[in-house]
Amino acid sequence: MLTPIITLLTDFGLEDSYVASMKGAILTVCPEARLIDISHLVAPQDVRAGAFLLATVYHDFPSGTIHLVVIDPGVGSARRGLVIELDRHLFVGPDNGLFSLVLRDTSAWEAFSLENPAFWRPTVSKTFHGRDIFAPVAGHLALGLAPRALGPPCTPQMASWASAVETGEEIRGEIIHIDNFGNAVTNVSSEMIERFAPGSPIAVRTGGLSISRVFDTYGDQEPGVVMALVGSSRRLEIAINQGRAAEICGLHCGDPVSIVRT
Amino acid sequence: MLTPIITLLTDFGLEDSYVASMKGAILTVCPEARLIDISHLVAPQDVRAGAFLLATVYHDFPSGTIHLVVIDPGVGSARRGLVIELDRHLFVGPDNGLFSLVLRDTSAWEAFSLENPAFWRPTVSKTFHGRDIFAPVAGHLALGLAPRALGPPCTPQMASWASAVETGEEIRGEIIHIDNFGNAVTNVSSEMIERFAPGSPIAVRTGGLSISRVFDTYGDQEPGVVMALVGSSRRLEIAINQGRAAEICGLHCGDPVSIVRT
Amino acid sequence: MLTPIITLLTDFGLEDSYVASMKGAILTVCPEARLIDISHLVAPQDVRAGAFLLATVYHDFPSGTIHLVVIDPGVGSARRGLVIELDRHLFVGPDNGLFSLVLRDTSAWEAFSLENPAFWRPTVSKTFHGRDIFAPVAGHLALGLAPRALGPPCTPQMASWASAVETGEEIRGEIIHIDNFGNAVTNVSSEMIERFAPGSPIAVRTGGLSISRVFDTYGDQEPGVVMALVGSSRRLEIAINQGRAAEICGLHCGDPVSIVRT
Repeated sequence: MLTPIITLLTDFGLEDSYVASMKGAILTVCPEARLIDISHLVAPQDVRAGAFLLATVYHDFPSGTIHLVVIDPGVGSARRGLVIELDRHLFVGPDNGLFSLVLRDTSAWEAFSLENPAFWRPTVSKTFHGRDIFAPVAGHLALGLAPRALGPPCTPQMASWASAVETGEEIRGEIIHIDNFGNAVTNVSSEMIERFAPGSPIAVRTGGLSISRVFDTYGDQEPGVVMALVGSSRRLEIAINQGRAAEICGLHCGDPVSIVRT
Repeated sequence: MLTPIITLLTDFGLEDSYVASMKGAILTVCPEARLIDISHLVAPQDVRAGAFLLATVYHDFPSGTIHLVVIDPGVGSARRGLVIELDRHLFVGPDNGLFSLVLRDTSAWEAFSLENPAFWRPTVSKTFHGRDIFAPVAGHLALGLAPRALGPPCTPQMASWASAVETGEEIRGEIIHIDNFGNAVTNVSSEMIERFAPGSPIAVRTGGLSISRVFDTYGDQEPGVVMALVGSSRRLEIAINQGRAAEICGLHCGDPVSIVRT
Repeated sequence: MLTPIITLLTDFGLEDSYVASMKGAILTVCPEARLIDISHLVAPQDVRAGAFLLATVYHDFPSGTIHLVVIDPGVGSARRGLVIELDRHLFVGPDNGLFSLVLRDTSAWEAFSLENPAFWRPTVSKTFHGRDIFAPVAGHLALGLAPRALGPPCTPQMASWASAVETGEEIRGEIIHIDNFGNAVTNVSSEMIERFAPGSPIAVRTGGLSISRVFDTYGDQEPGVVMALVGSSRRLEIAINQGRAAEICGLHCGDPVSIVRT
């Protein structure tokens, strides 16, 4: 049987050796672990962006994958470390809302607080729990350790930005990610839109824009025209075919988005 | 026997989770695949730069390597997907000229149009064929599938910028890549220069510069002096020892380059 | 038994295919090698920054790991290539001071000059020894080749910036790295500080600043206040909790740092 895959998602950047330190710490515990980077260019301490990337990508990996996520503004404070089992994937990282978007769509999860130092490095620094706690824990999980061995059951934090809100008249959401192509991704899921306005026309409003149709693909609209679409992330996006919508329309993370029936 | 290596080359950037989605899709099909990144920082939709990197690097990998290349401005349109077998390497990606530089140097290739959905994801999005078609296809090839099982034979597109032209008096080429050190790489191969002017002196002209010698290594010229050389890519480059030639001389991709006998 | 891990640390950037060429060259020699990137975003030709990253990270990897480091301003000149065995790790790269910080802390090393072309590529370019000499050498070491087979014993270069100096009155060091969070890391080790002022108060002076306490973790100081700490690298750093100390305080690599008793 193959050793599980461990994915890594951090805000450590690619200029330093921090990511490599975590990989070394994993391989010291589990030399056969297969390591796949998700991204290390999350903006420093941007828990929301990390949560978004994780929720977008985790189900593209095989069952049994371990996702190690370290965006950790509270390192050195009393914030808890977590392991979560959900949808036959495992998630390891700090308890600061990082797993909100993954947890939102299901109630079938189990979570444990990382309190058993037997599975950490012998010496734990105050500044780098990624290397000293989370990476060795992921290594032990890859060796087959049961999550419950890592600490007592607990309930992870849910962040307020994890869900859009439906009021009957309107879906109120926000932009939660600007992707590499300048597309502005919202926290409004395609399921929420279908439930809100099944088969009827809607308008998407944000930053002074009102967009009257939701397309399936960038190429369905002329180049240069602002459009709404449900892309590969299954979330509503504001985009421009062959253009960077966020810059052109002045859209930013956290900007409110409203969907109404027309 | 070891599972083949799959290299990945895209314009997806490293900030998003798109590359990881492709890797997850490969590993879902072929859990033992060994994945090596070429680059994901090709400028968005710059097919020419991707073609250049691929042609430069592919033969450094062992026979049997599968090269997955997704720079795909036409995703969602009717553009074809390809698998090409050439020089005991396999290439997978959209049919938009990406493979021009690889195909240019040989006629011993076979190509097939990706038309058999049995080897794709069950659901194919309109915006992300990298994850939904090309990655699973690469995974099946890594499992040993014959390329011909993927669709009917076809002839790939050849791009106009793939070759410099020799007129008898002159080689007319262009700059096709600015590398990380600021070197300006042209589409003029060392073989073309040797055929054009065997053992006789030449001048390289571009952007108002006239350079009268071609060196073998950066250190052969004084620091700070503009030079021409045939570098490790076996193509003519304009460079400055310990300096960034492209910025200093104002050279850009697409700039014409002329080689004459002197 | 598992094939050794090979780490890669270069100044090649992530936009070009140079790193992939080295990986292909390793895998051509040793198809089972497991490759882990440390960083490829070291500033071009910044041997000091590479030496710092290497010394920080290498001991996080398991015994037997091979560290391939190519920051090589002298490529094409007569500078020597090295393999070093130290602390049950192997190091491969040019002899230009890159290994100074690793060598500084021990006298238990053996080094050999890379002079035996039997373990290089058949053709060696003048511009890319990373691919043509260092990568194949690392591949052969991963296959189990003894370092002494690669060439005669030699003594590696030690760079002047490798150590801070203690005068009795003062430790005189310098800033050797600005990390991704804007922390300014010095060449003053925690051991040197403990030896200089065991249990007594000190002040850290650099760039007009005088900092009167050394903390253990970023969170021990209020956000926004300049602090000194001994971080996970075991070296003295100048930092700001939730801020970028280097930019805010105008600190740069090479700036002198003085530690005195108070």
